Amino acid sequence: MDNIRVIEVKRSVFESNDQDAERLRGELKESKTFLLNLMSSPGSGKTTTLTRTIEALKDKYRIGVMEADIDSDVDAKTIAATGVKSIQLHTGGMCHLDADMTRQGLKELGLEDVDFAILENVGNLVCPAEFDTGSTKNAMILSVPEGHDKPLKYPLMFSICDVVLINKIDVMPYFDFDLEKCKEYIHMRNPKAKVIPICAKTGEGIEEWAKWLSENIDESIK
Amino acid sequence: MDNIRVIEVKRSVFESNDQDAERLRGELKESKTFLLNLMSSPGSGKTTTLTRTIEALKDKYRIGVMEADIDSDVDAKTIAATGVKSIQLHTGGMCHLDADMTRQGLKELGLEDVDFAILENVGNLVCPAEFDTGSTKNAMILSVPEGHDKPLKYPLMFSICDVVLINKIDVMPYFDFDLEKCKEYIHMRNPKAKVIPICAKTGEGIEEWAKWLSENIDESIK
Repeated sequence: MDNIRVIEVKRSVFESNDQDAERLRGELKESKTFLLNLMSSPGSGKTTTLTRTIEALKDKYRIGVMEADIDSDVDAKTIAATGVKSIQLHTGGMCHLDADMTRQGLKELGLEDVDFAILENVGNLVCPAEFDTGSTKNAMILSVPEGHDKPLKYPLMFSICDVVLINKIDVMPYFDFDLEKCKEYIHMRNPKAKVIPICAKTGEGIEEWAKWLSENIDESIK
Repeated sequence: MDNIRVIEVKRSVFESNDQDAERLRGELKESKTFLLNLMSSPGSGKTTTLTRTIEALKDKYRIGVMEADIDSDVDAKTIAATGVKSIQLHTGGMCHLDADMTRQGLKELGLEDVDFAILENVGNLVCPAEFDTGSTKNAMILSVPEGHDKPLKYPLMFSICDVVLINKIDVMPYFDFDLEKCKEYIHMRNPKAKVIPICAKTGEGIEEWAKWLSENIDESIK
């Protein structure tokens, strides 16, 4: 477990992150790599969801994971234990990753060795939504204890996500969480967003999520 | 409920936020106002905790609340219903408040009319920790579903807080949350931090929290 590669990512030298993100998407297409940008609040279950996702798809794709964290390596250790290639990106206090920081991580993973790259972004519903990482698709996790009103309060995050996983549905009975209302609010922000209820702890819903991913990866790397 | 005052806060004109925060702390001392900066992840229960806090202390102090939000007014409506003076601060996408933005809010509340001002900061464990708001004390809420490892992953936030409320302790049996480990991690970051387990929904622990507040407010406004 001591062999986790840690990259101290540097601030981007590019003036326009949007342009650079488009450039990175071109590079990914060229090398037939699908990049998922996974975002959420702290503690919504990104790492557990990621572990399940890897279990479901690691025989089908060559997976590589970038764990972005302010300065710990708690999650990277968990991911390394799944056996896939993983690196830790230290943002040095930065609250998000931009396209060039993501590129620095992908270079370490080795684009030619990876079909399905995953960026676990910093736990934050505000800043990561403002910086295009160059990902092929954006996903976010909203966990039941956070409440169904989050799309009202963090509009940009929900509007840029292709898929929203509603995690921790096993504890729904103990919280005032209205799934239908939540879906309605998400679709107010983004009518095209796919919503998948899951429980990363028990594995419920992971099959549907893996299916959505497979379809999108296959479309992207064919 | 339609009379919630909304302030679009402007970017600070001051070069050094740290100096400006010290200046604001001086202004608060001068006017005998205690300012609490309340921070947390999205969905940890800031607004419910605030409602309980107001109930417990509104007969003792003249309370004023500033609700910072990217652009909704969901929380401000809830707070306005408690009957205390409240305003909505729109950050225009910004992920935190600095001292001058806080000052703009306090001006609208009217320092001379308020003994106990509360800033409900943007739901975010990263950026708000980096910007001193000029508050008398900093508090944060960590909710049980987020997990006890958060002090390892968001070190700065825990190191700057005078008090950490562990919220949603009613659902502890349904989560792998180790309270003793959590306290240990918090004290690793900040040996002086006071830790108070609460359940804002049922009111458990609110008495201890209100006592801590009263002591600190009385000390500050005497």
